[in-house]
Amino acid sequence: MKSSLFVLSALLLVGSASAQLKPEEMIQFRQAGYKTMAWNMGKIKAQTDAPADKFDKTLTLNAALAIKGVANSGMGALYGPGTDTKTASIKTRALPDLFDPKNFDERNKIGKNFGEQANKLADVAAGGDQKAIQAQFGELGKACKACHDKFREEEKK
Amino acid sequence: MKSSLFVLSALLLVGSASAQLKPEEMIQFRQAGYKTMAWNMGKIKAQTDAPADKFDKTLTLNAALAIKGVANSGMGALYGPGTDTKTASIKTRALPDLFDPKNFDERNKIGKNFGEQANKLADVAAGGDQKAIQAQFGELGKACKACHDKFREEEKK
Repeated sequence: MKSSLFVLSALLLVGSASAQLKPEEMIQFRQAGYKTMAWNMGKIKAQTDAPADKFDKTLTLNAALAIKGVANSGMGALYGPGTDTKTASIKTRALPDLFDPKNFDERNKIGKNFGEQANKLADVAAGGDQKAIQAQFGELGKACKACHDKFREEEKK
Repeated sequence: MKSSLFVLSALLLVGSASAQLKPEEMIQFRQAGYKTMAWNMGKIKAQTDAPADKFDKTLTLNAALAIKGVANSGMGALYGPGTDTKTASIKTRALPDLFDPKNFDERNKIGKNFGEQANKLADVAAGGDQKAIQAQFGELGKACKACHDKFREEEKK
């Protein structure tokens, strides 16, 4: 039920605010979102790897809040028709399987978990405990990887 | 004093978490951040322009929170040496004036105002009043434009 609502919500989004977006724009916007999250992931990684006396709680929290904000911004709406590896006119690594309705339950489960782990990271980051943040950062990483492993084309070297 | 602290903070950032970033990576990350905010600005614009009975409060709030998160993520750290129009090895529209210490007071004032207007938009969006959101959205747009007008190269057609 939750999955169906998620799909419905994504479709409504596509049908309203994002109706005017071309497939290329969807790809560019979603890549920008992931890149923004990646930058902030990198900052958190550097902070959790740092010696305890060098740990910057504010920087870490702000990075976690940026990830939380983007993760909850409805990026599912940016996966419209014509935006997979086979049909897109610009480079993307989103495999056609991601757009196959038979995979929507899994896709939505992965997406929902990603949002939840991002929210949890922001909560833990607010607490300022470097070790706890490191642990939750690992959970968020796993949530990212779940989608990459299943639905993202391997990078060509 | 606040300006000096802002600069110091930005330099410390560059000196720690972002020390490993190349100029090209800084440019790519900051462009991703602005693009992510632009997508969310577009969604808010569509919502504030919509008839009152079509206004989606949740979508608008989530977009505002994404902007707030990115706006507060310390993007000043992504303006290191070699990332202006004259010295960068990839396309950027950040004019050398933005990197000139004599303009740091103005740059920091503009940056600070941008963050404040983004925070205010998220607060107003939480209230769900479409007209109030539209008004504050306009203020955020002005805050963006203040930097574009002064420090961004005009787009080549």
